[in-house]
Amino acid sequence: MPAKRDTYTPDTLLAVAVRVFNERGYDGTSMEHLSRAAGISKSSIYHHVTGKEELLRRAISRALDELFALLEEPAALRGRAVDRLEHVTRRTAEVLMADLPYVTLLLRVRGNTDTERWAMARRREFDQQVAALLKQAAAEGDLRTDVDPRLATRLLFGMINSLVEWYRPDRSGHGGHTKDEVAEAVVRTAFAGLRTTPER
Amino acid sequence: MPAKRDTYTPDTLLAVAVRVFNERGYDGTSMEHLSRAAGISKSSIYHHVTGKEELLRRAISRALDELFALLEEPAALRGRAVDRLEHVTRRTAEVLMADLPYVTLLLRVRGNTDTERWAMARRREFDQQVAALLKQAAAEGDLRTDVDPRLATRLLFGMINSLVEWYRPDRSGHGGHTKDEVAEAVVRTAFAGLRTTPER
Repeated sequence: MPAKRDTYTPDTLLAVAVRVFNERGYDGTSMEHLSRAAGISKSSIYHHVTGKEELLRRAISRALDELFALLEEPAALRGRAVDRLEHVTRRTAEVLMADLPYVTLLLRVRGNTDTERWAMARRREFDQQVAALLKQAAAEGDLRTDVDPRLATRLLFGMINSLVEWYRPDRSGHGGHTKDEVAEAVVRTAFAGLRTTPER
Repeated sequence: MPAKRDTYTPDTLLAVAVRVFNERGYDGTSMEHLSRAAGISKSSIYHHVTGKEELLRRAISRALDELFALLEEPAALRGRAVDRLEHVTRRTAEVLMADLPYVTLLLRVRGNTDTERWAMARRREFDQQVAALLKQAAAEGDLRTDVDPRLATRLLFGMINSLVEWYRPDRSGHGGHTKDEVAEAVVRTAFAGLRTTPER
């Protein structure tokens, strides 16, 4: 029987739910699992939210809000497209690391509920805005033309999004890398490549 | 009640199992699910294999055998490390696309059974061999030194492995890309970068 007093705020309850969703998958998570993980009764959880889908929506909104906000930053709006694209790449990597569990959840939703389908649509919108920036940078002559812009967008996000698979904040400081080092490595690798003497 | 006559070979039964594992997750798949997907009884499946873990082991072995074999190809063994690394990158992308469901399964195992832990250990071995090649290429002066080799390895695999998330063979030919185009784009992006005029 859950024994803990319900001292949760919306944010702290959300953090518990996101952890459980990422561990068990959203489909595989029941209110019972959430109740056990939080150490409070199901009815206490219902005091905070209407159900697990509301928790999913809140968690995903948080990730999406951060991602769309970075597209509105001055450095994402002004200057050459390639520089704006580099800024967006760096900031996307930073948001991903700063809000790791929330973005992980966003990247893993598969579209079985209205909330998941909405999340996927919003994520596509974000990808499309970055793809448009990439196309503009190519049109301005700053990106290589022998890689299709759609493929380039996929590979860029492939590299950035892979962070959710291997970046762990607790490893920084002891043999790990800081967020800044990782974001810088992503930008350098994606835009300048690993080779010292590229064949172009 | 399953009605289909059991005309499966080890390979065709494996293909069904891999599809179900990828859809439901290995943990979430029961022999009942496999029986329903194959359209034959559970006892017919037990005629072929000892259980679902054997199917997992066979599927993952197939992916691992392909991956380790490419490390033994002449172009992976001879020449400058950077060229060997490019060859390994291209071939890893090709193997991933050619054996997509099998490599997808390999990349998703999380280590709850002996077979999964073995798969993860073998996968780490593969990654370490590529990382060693990357370090050698850096030592030979062909890779930039301002990105840590461990980070570079992660980002390189992040880009390659992202193919399992978005590459779909059936889209090639109608607006999609051929395997060759995708593999070439991976190599160009990873080694030479997206920019036409890199700042180095």
